[in-house]
Amino acid sequence: MDYESRLNKTILEVKPSGIRRFFDIVSDMEDVISLSIGEPDFRTPWHVSRAAIESLEKGRTWYTPNRGFEKLRVEIADFVKRKYELNYAPKTEILVTVGGSEALDLAMRCLLNPGDEVLIHQPSFVCYEPLTLMTGAVPKIIDTKKENSFRLTSQELEAAITDKTKLLILSYPNNPTGAVMRKADLEALAEVIIKHDLLVISDEIYSELTYSGKHVSMGAIEGMRERTVVINGFSKAFAMTGWRLGYAMGPATIIEMMTKLHQYGIMSAPTVAQYAAIEALKNGDKDIEKMRGEYEMRRRYVVGEFNAMGLTCFEPFGAFYSFPCIKSTGLTSEEFCTKLLESKRVAIVPGNAFGESGEGFVRVSYSYSLKHLREAISRIREFLQEL
Amino acid sequence: MDYESRLNKTILEVKPSGIRRFFDIVSDMEDVISLSIGEPDFRTPWHVSRAAIESLEKGRTWYTPNRGFEKLRVEIADFVKRKYELNYAPKTEILVTVGGSEALDLAMRCLLNPGDEVLIHQPSFVCYEPLTLMTGAVPKIIDTKKENSFRLTSQELEAAITDKTKLLILSYPNNPTGAVMRKADLEALAEVIIKHDLLVISDEIYSELTYSGKHVSMGAIEGMRERTVVINGFSKAFAMTGWRLGYAMGPATIIEMMTKLHQYGIMSAPTVAQYAAIEALKNGDKDIEKMRGEYEMRRRYVVGEFNAMGLTCFEPFGAFYSFPCIKSTGLTSEEFCTKLLESKRVAIVPGNAFGESGEGFVRVSYSYSLKHLREAISRIREFLQEL
Repeated sequence: MDYESRLNKTILEVKPSGIRRFFDIVSDMEDVISLSIGEPDFRTPWHVSRAAIESLEKGRTWYTPNRGFEKLRVEIADFVKRKYELNYAPKTEILVTVGGSEALDLAMRCLLNPGDEVLIHQPSFVCYEPLTLMTGAVPKIIDTKKENSFRLTSQELEAAITDKTKLLILSYPNNPTGAVMRKADLEALAEVIIKHDLLVISDEIYSELTYSGKHVSMGAIEGMRERTVVINGFSKAFAMTGWRLGYAMGPATIIEMMTKLHQYGIMSAPTVAQYAAIEALKNGDKDIEKMRGEYEMRRRYVVGEFNAMGLTCFEPFGAFYSFPCIKSTGLTSEEFCTKLLESKRVAIVPGNAFGESGEGFVRVSYSYSLKHLREAISRIREFLQEL
Repeated sequence: MDYESRLNKTILEVKPSGIRRFFDIVSDMEDVISLSIGEPDFRTPWHVSRAAIESLEKGRTWYTPNRGFEKLRVEIADFVKRKYELNYAPKTEILVTVGGSEALDLAMRCLLNPGDEVLIHQPSFVCYEPLTLMTGAVPKIIDTKKENSFRLTSQELEAAITDKTKLLILSYPNNPTGAVMRKADLEALAEVIIKHDLLVISDEIYSELTYSGKHVSMGAIEGMRERTVVINGFSKAFAMTGWRLGYAMGPATIIEMMTKLHQYGIMSAPTVAQYAAIEALKNGDKDIEKMRGEYEMRRRYVVGEFNAMGLTCFEPFGAFYSFPCIKSTGLTSEEFCTKLLESKRVAIVPGNAFGESGEGFVRVSYSYSLKHLREAISRIREFLQEL
């Protein structure tokens, strides 16, 4: 049967993730040491898993309310107030989702109409552009620059706005660059956003992995609350990727609309994960601190080593990635990664997997033990010497 | 802010589920005895939950592959072959999803282009029409009839087809009617489907709750495999609603496309649920039989009682719903349910929540203990006598 002529045209044309393509090559090889992972290497803290186990022992295996347990939404409201000075009402302004991913998909489907222009800064996570395309809206890419520490500037934003611009997708702390935005940076953006009456989806999934100063949420910037959907979740902060639990926060009208779509397309987030998440929010602050301390140590080591090697590395203050520049080698990002993989069996991700402006860089995850990192770094050093 | 002028027009116009509206009324009342639930009253079998607990004790809390664990896909392939004579390749033709719900949403987004016509038989589950609308496609409703035991006939199908018809959504065993389709019924439909070169999404989530004869899958009917996406899951068969785990099976090209969308919009299904599901498929046949035996006993009781009361009840051979006709009372479905709730504190769902052709009927779930059912039935009998 000729499927291509009849299946959805947009989705047919969307490319599979460049990260995935690289992972597929890696998975066919042996003895590879990887610095390519995009999730915490830690297990979920035991007291969190224990809360989940208790819920199973009590036989709590039914659906939850569509929006998620109210008790969980209350804990989320407390957490984001305590941490980021955000004020959202548990009953009407918070929706529990299947990871940050579902929250993003829902927000885009609810905020966009076909033909709307969506501003996406790159390098950034791989899903924003395809999810935008799938709504019939038009992605407009803004390239952030190393000289600006990969922050989005108000000038760059202003220059990209047209009369069709509806939405900005903001993604800090940033994957893959590790960049963060300070309060003053966000305020400068907010001025432009309000002036042009735009909406914002702020993906803050790495908010707890901020190594210098505190994370500032776009939802807490003056004048932004009414035009922002803040997305966060449990995967990165609490090492809970496999549980698939996130949340969206925003104005009641938008959250209600997202809930309607969530109810038809997903029903409710996993019950056992919601019990785990309640425990994580109540008693997980120490776990976050401990993991952040580990990441911080690794971050200093990895960034120091790359700079010493001559692969100049912008200092990343968030997430768990470094993003060294490999232009001095004369290789493209893909050539660098492919040769490194073939000759030294070290897997890292080409920067251009995160947008064309990632060309000339590579993403190196430091979500690994120091021992693992040392071995990989020593192989990369050898690789450079042999070039 | 005026949100309505800027948010997605289609989703704004989609109505929230009529079941939900009725549940909201119920949740504000006390002492209500409910026959309105849409999920098994059983807990997940203990050996299944225990497998999940073991995975948590071993710290297996990371993402799984996007398609789901290969081991799980192999078990799914075995299960559907053994039960329904379906042949799907675990590597390329099966995708593990967040419940049947996500699988449906993915399938519709991948198969449809704006303007395509989608045939939906009603009464049926509430999500098909909104999910169709959200793709920009056009739902065309076919009303099934009590005199045909709420089966979709080939004549009804043929009469609804135009040159824009792309897809039929087939939903048997049916929620809310309890209707099933026999092999000959499906073969008659297949002839029309093939003649008009349509695609089919076959939602078979209640397949294991079939009380007379065996469930037959549309994917197993000659000539249908290449044009059918079969959707199933763990919620109903294994009493695993809260785990949020389902799957889609179909031609590799379609499954690959759905996987691409799933990867961007969801990432992967919950890890702990996948471990539970492997155990369920391996060692859960007895649980299914036991629960089916219970449902069968309740089914006979409830159907018998309604017929004795004069609310004539088509005999439902699938799912866990009876769908008695209340036209003899002179009340509409909503009037009947509202009055019953107010005067006797019994909650059931108006048939028109599942489409206009459900008017004159009510959905009564028998996913409750016999004791609970007896009390509710006795109140309904009183209600009728007092009318």
